[in-house]
Amino acid sequence: MADIDALRAKMKTIGDHVRTLKAQGAPKEQVDAEVAKLQEAKKELSESTGEPLGEEKGKKGRMALKTPKGTRDWAPSDMALREHIFSTLARVFKKHGGSNIDTPVFELKEILAGKYGEDSKLIYDLQDQGGELCSLRYDLTVPFARFLAMNPTQYANIKRYHIAKVYRRDQPVMTKGRMREFYQCDFDIAGHYDSMVPDAEILCIVCEALTELEIGDFTVKINHRKILDGIFAVCGVPAQKIRSISSAIDKLDKLPWVEVRKEMTEEKGLDPEVADRIGKYVMLKGGPELLDRLKKTELANNKMAKQGMDDMELLFAYLDVYGISDKMSFDLSLARGLDYYTGIIYEAVTQASAPPGFSTIPPVPPPESQANGSHAGPSAPSSKPPKKSKKDAEGEEEVDETTVGVGSIAAGGRYDELVGMFLSAASGASGSAKKAAGIPCVGISVGVERVFSILHQKSKHDEESRWGRSKETEVFIVAVAEGLLPERMKLAKELWDAGIKAEFMQKAKPKFRAQFDLIDKERVPFAVLLGPDELKNGIVKVKVQKGKDETKEDEGEVVKRDDLVSWLKQRL
Amino acid sequence: MADIDALRAKMKTIGDHVRTLKAQGAPKEQVDAEVAKLQEAKKELSESTGEPLGEEKGKKGRMALKTPKGTRDWAPSDMALREHIFSTLARVFKKHGGSNIDTPVFELKEILAGKYGEDSKLIYDLQDQGGELCSLRYDLTVPFARFLAMNPTQYANIKRYHIAKVYRRDQPVMTKGRMREFYQCDFDIAGHYDSMVPDAEILCIVCEALTELEIGDFTVKINHRKILDGIFAVCGVPAQKIRSISSAIDKLDKLPWVEVRKEMTEEKGLDPEVADRIGKYVMLKGGPELLDRLKKTELANNKMAKQGMDDMELLFAYLDVYGISDKMSFDLSLARGLDYYTGIIYEAVTQASAPPGFSTIPPVPPPESQANGSHAGPSAPSSKPPKKSKKDAEGEEEVDETTVGVGSIAAGGRYDELVGMFLSAASGASGSAKKAAGIPCVGISVGVERVFSILHQKSKHDEESRWGRSKETEVFIVAVAEGLLPERMKLAKELWDAGIKAEFMQKAKPKFRAQFDLIDKERVPFAVLLGPDELKNGIVKVKVQKGKDETKEDEGEVVKRDDLVSWLKQRL
Repeated sequence: MADIDALRAKMKTIGDHVRTLKAQGAPKEQVDAEVAKLQEAKKELSESTGEPLGEEKGKKGRMALKTPKGTRDWAPSDMALREHIFSTLARVFKKHGGSNIDTPVFELKEILAGKYGEDSKLIYDLQDQGGELCSLRYDLTVPFARFLAMNPTQYANIKRYHIAKVYRRDQPVMTKGRMREFYQCDFDIAGHYDSMVPDAEILCIVCEALTELEIGDFTVKINHRKILDGIFAVCGVPAQKIRSISSAIDKLDKLPWVEVRKEMTEEKGLDPEVADRIGKYVMLKGGPELLDRLKKTELANNKMAKQGMDDMELLFAYLDVYGISDKMSFDLSLARGLDYYTGIIYEAVTQASAPPGFSTIPPVPPPESQANGSHAGPSAPSSKPPKKSKKDAEGEEEVDETTVGVGSIAAGGRYDELVGMFLSAASGASGSAKKAAGIPCVGISVGVERVFSILHQKSKHDEESRWGRSKETEVFIVAVAEGLLPERMKLAKELWDAGIKAEFMQKAKPKFRAQFDLIDKERVPFAVLLGPDELKNGIVKVKVQKGKDETKEDEGEVVKRDDLVSWLKQRL
Repeated sequence: MADIDALRAKMKTIGDHVRTLKAQGAPKEQVDAEVAKLQEAKKELSESTGEPLGEEKGKKGRMALKTPKGTRDWAPSDMALREHIFSTLARVFKKHGGSNIDTPVFELKEILAGKYGEDSKLIYDLQDQGGELCSLRYDLTVPFARFLAMNPTQYANIKRYHIAKVYRRDQPVMTKGRMREFYQCDFDIAGHYDSMVPDAEILCIVCEALTELEIGDFTVKINHRKILDGIFAVCGVPAQKIRSISSAIDKLDKLPWVEVRKEMTEEKGLDPEVADRIGKYVMLKGGPELLDRLKKTELANNKMAKQGMDDMELLFAYLDVYGISDKMSFDLSLARGLDYYTGIIYEAVTQASAPPGFSTIPPVPPPESQANGSHAGPSAPSSKPPKKSKKDAEGEEEVDETTVGVGSIAAGGRYDELVGMFLSAASGASGSAKKAAGIPCVGISVGVERVFSILHQKSKHDEESRWGRSKETEVFIVAVAEGLLPERMKLAKELWDAGIKAEFMQKAKPKFRAQFDLIDKERVPFAVLLGPDELKNGIVKVKVQKGKDETKEDEGEVVKRDDLVSWLKQRL
C-alpha cells in the first residue's frame, strides 16, 4: 500500500503543477510534457491496483479506451528489442537446420481437447457463429503435432521452428508479466532418430540461444519422466494419484519442501510415509555422478526408471561432446505440468529472473554433500510463496510465467506419443493400436516475455542503448530557409532510391529549430542542410550528430550534391 | 464441373497405380511418392468442391484432422517466400522512418463496432467466458486509431508500420485465396502536416514497395472521397443513398457499367436519370488533365468537390517531384468500401493479378479520347462477373481479395476522423464536439497473400529459385564409415559456434547413401566428409554440391581440419 500511496501523492503533485503552468500561460509543450507524466503515473497506479484508469471506468455512454484484459500494445521502442530477440533466436534455429512453419491462431476445439490437463479451462473459445467450433491456440506444440499428423509422410523428419502468439485465459498479473496473449518461440525435432541425439542437440540450442541473447548466467535443469514415474512406483504412489503428486513436486522451485509435503498429504491424501520416501529422491540434484548413486538404490530394479537412467547416461555423454555439461543440473524435483511429455524434460533458469529472496538456480552441491538419501532442500527455504517481482517505472515488465514457471525462461521435453494420438483419433482406432505409427518429437519453447523483461531492464542502465531509438532513420533533410519542400522531397527520393533511410519535416515552411528538435529526439545521425545558396552552388552541408552540445558548435561539412549518396554510403 | 471430373479421373488413375505397385511389391519410396500425389489430388478436389477430405468427414468417433475453415498451415518453402515479402516491405517502411508497433489479436468488441458498415457481420467474436466481450481484429487500421487515441500526446506524430494477421468470417474461396485468416502489411502517417505531403509519400512508398517486390507492372488508381461526394451531390443522389450507391460504384472494376447501373436503379431504387448523370462522371479516368476538365463542369461549383480537386492538384505536383506520376491513374470509379475514409483513396492493381478475360489495369486513354462527358467503360466489358482465377497444381494460391478487391494488391486512403471518433466516444462528448482533437491519418495496406500468389507463381518457373529450399543449411557433415557420431557432433558444434549453419544425420551409424540423399534433397551446398583416415591425419574432405550429376564424379577437396571454419567462411 505504501507504493500506491506514494503514487497517489506523486499524481497530486504533478496535477497541481499542471494547473499552475496553465494558470501561468506556460508553453503548450511544457504543459503537454507534464500531462504525459500524469498519464504515466495513472497507468502505473492502475496496474498496481488492478483498477481501470479513471477515464476508462466505462461510465454510462462512454467507451472504454483500452486493450482487453491481460493484453497490451507494443510501442516502437519495445518492438526494436522484441525483433532483436526474434532474429537472434531465428538465427540460432536456422543454424541447426530449422525450417519455419506457421499455423492458424485458432484450431478446431477438439484438436486442443484433452491435451492440457487442468489447464484446459484456460483455453479461449471462439463464439459459435455457425459452423465449426474453434479455440485460440494454447501453445505451439499441439498445433505442430496436428500439422505432422496431417502430413506424416512429407514431414516424417523435420526440425521446425515457430515464433507466434499463444493465448491463455489466466488471471493476468501484468506486473509479473503473466499475460493472456504472449509469444512463444519453439524449436522441435520430429523423426525416428537414435536415442538422445536430437535431445542433446535441443539442449545445445538452448545454451546457444541463451548465450547469444546475453541474458547472463543460466542453468538448465533436466530430469526424465520415466525416472519420475519409477520413483513414484518404488515409493508406492497409487496410480490414480501420480498426476496430482507430480504437479505438487513441480512446485519445489517456488515452495519449500514442508509446503509441498503438506499439499501432497493434507490436500491430496498421500500417505505421509510415501511422501517422505518421495522427498528422499526429489530433492536430489547434481551431475552425472547422481546417476551412479541412483543406480545403487531400489530404482535400479524398476524397469521404467532403468530406461530413464540409460537415456540420461547417454545424454550426459553427448552433452560432454557439445561442451555444455557445466550448464546442466540433473534435478529430480523437475516435473513439468503438461500431460504429453514422455522422456527427458528441462527448464532453463537464470539468476536475473529469480524473485527476490528465492534463488531459482539450484547450486550444484559437491558430491560429498549428497550423501545417499540426504534431504537437500531448496537453497533458500521460505515459509511463504515468493514475492511478486518488482514492476519497473514504466510498468513495462512482461514476464511469461504461465509457460515456463516462475523464473524459468525456456522449457520443453520429449513427447513421443502426441502425433500418434492424433493419428489414432482421426482413424478411429483405439488409442494403443496405432501408437507405433506416430512421430517421436522433442522440443523447446523460449519464453520471450521473460527474456524481454531481463534485456529491457539491462538496457535501461545504458543511455546509448541500441534499443532506445524507435526508428532507424539515418538522414534528416533540413530546410535552412524558405521551405524548399519540393527540393527536400526530390533529395529524399534520391536517398530512398539509394536505400538510405531518410526523412524530412512534412511541412511547407518548417521552422529551423523544430527540425533539429526532431533530429535530437530521434537521434538521427546525419542532418543534410538545404538552403538557397547551397542549391545554387550544387552543394549541401552535412552535420554529423555526435551529441546534443557538439551539434550546435558544428558548422557542418560541405559535400557536393552529386556526391552526397556515395558520401553518406561510406559513412553509414 | 469439367475440372472436378478430370480431378476425380486423375485420382482414380493414381489410386489404381498405387494398388498395382503394392501388388508388385514395389519399393516403399515409390509407393509413398504415389500416395503423396493422391493426397495432393484429394486436397485439390476438396478445395475445388469445398467438401472436406475423405478422411476428414468426421465419421462417428473420428476426429477431423484439419485446420478450421478458411485457414491453412504455411509449410517451410512457403514461409521462405513469405518472410522475403515481409522483410522487403519492412525495409521500405523503415527507409521512410517507419516505427513498428504491435497490438493484440483481439480488441474489445465495442472498439470495432460501427467501423466497417455492412461488413461488420464478418467479425469473429470470442465466446463470452465471463469478463469483457472481445472480437478478433478485422483490420490493422482501427486498432492503430485506438492506439493513437490512447496515446494522443506521445504519438501525435508517427509513421508506423504493422505486419500482422487479421480475421474475417467471410465465405472462403481457397482457390481465389479468399481466406478467413490472412496477413496485412500496413504503413500509416499520423499527424497534423501540410496538405498532401504525407499522402504523396504514402503513394511513393506503394511504388517503391511494389517495385522492390518485383511483382511486374502495376498501376495505382487514385480518387478523392470529397470529389465523389461532390459528384453524388451534383447528380442528385439522396443523402441516405450515398453509401449504397458508393458501394455499387466500387464494383466497376469487376462489373460492366450496365450491371452497376442495374444495381443502382433496380436494386437500390435510384432514379435512372441520376444514375446516368453519375455514369457520365465515374467512368472517366486519366491524369492531371482530367482535373482541368472537371473544373469546367458543374463540379466546380460544389464546395466539397472543389476541396477534393484542390487536393488532387497539389498531390499531382508532388507526385511529379517524386517521379511517380506515370504509375497513377486518376479514376473516378474508385470508391473503396470502408466507412472511415475522408480524403484521397487508392488501390494498386497489376496485370499479373487480373482475372482471365478482364483487365484490372485501366489503360490510361490519350486525352483526346476523353471528350467531355464521354462514357469510357471499363476496358474489357463483360456481361458476367470475372471467372475465378485458376488454382495452381498444389492448391497453393492464396489471394486476399476481401481486403483489396479483386485484383488489387494494395489499398488505402486518408481517414482524418477515426482517432477523433474514439476520443469523443471515450470522453462521452457528442461526435462533433471533439473532432478537432483527433489525429489525421493516411495509410496503405499491402495484401500479402496476393503478392505471395504472384511471386509463388513466378518462382515455379524457376527450378533454381531461392524459394525452393525449406531451410538454409550450408554444411552437412557426412560419416564416411563407422558412424563417428561424437566426431560429427564435435565438428557440428565448432561450425555452430562459428555461426555456420550445419547439420548431420541423427543416427549412430548412418548409411553413406542416405546422408547424400538428404544433401541432394535439401540442396545443401557443402558436404564435409569425415572418415577414420581423415581424422588420423587432421583433415576433412569437402565436396561442393554443384548439381546432382557433378557430385558423383567429384572426389572432394582436402582441407585441414583446423582451417575448415575459415575455408568455409570464405566460400559462404
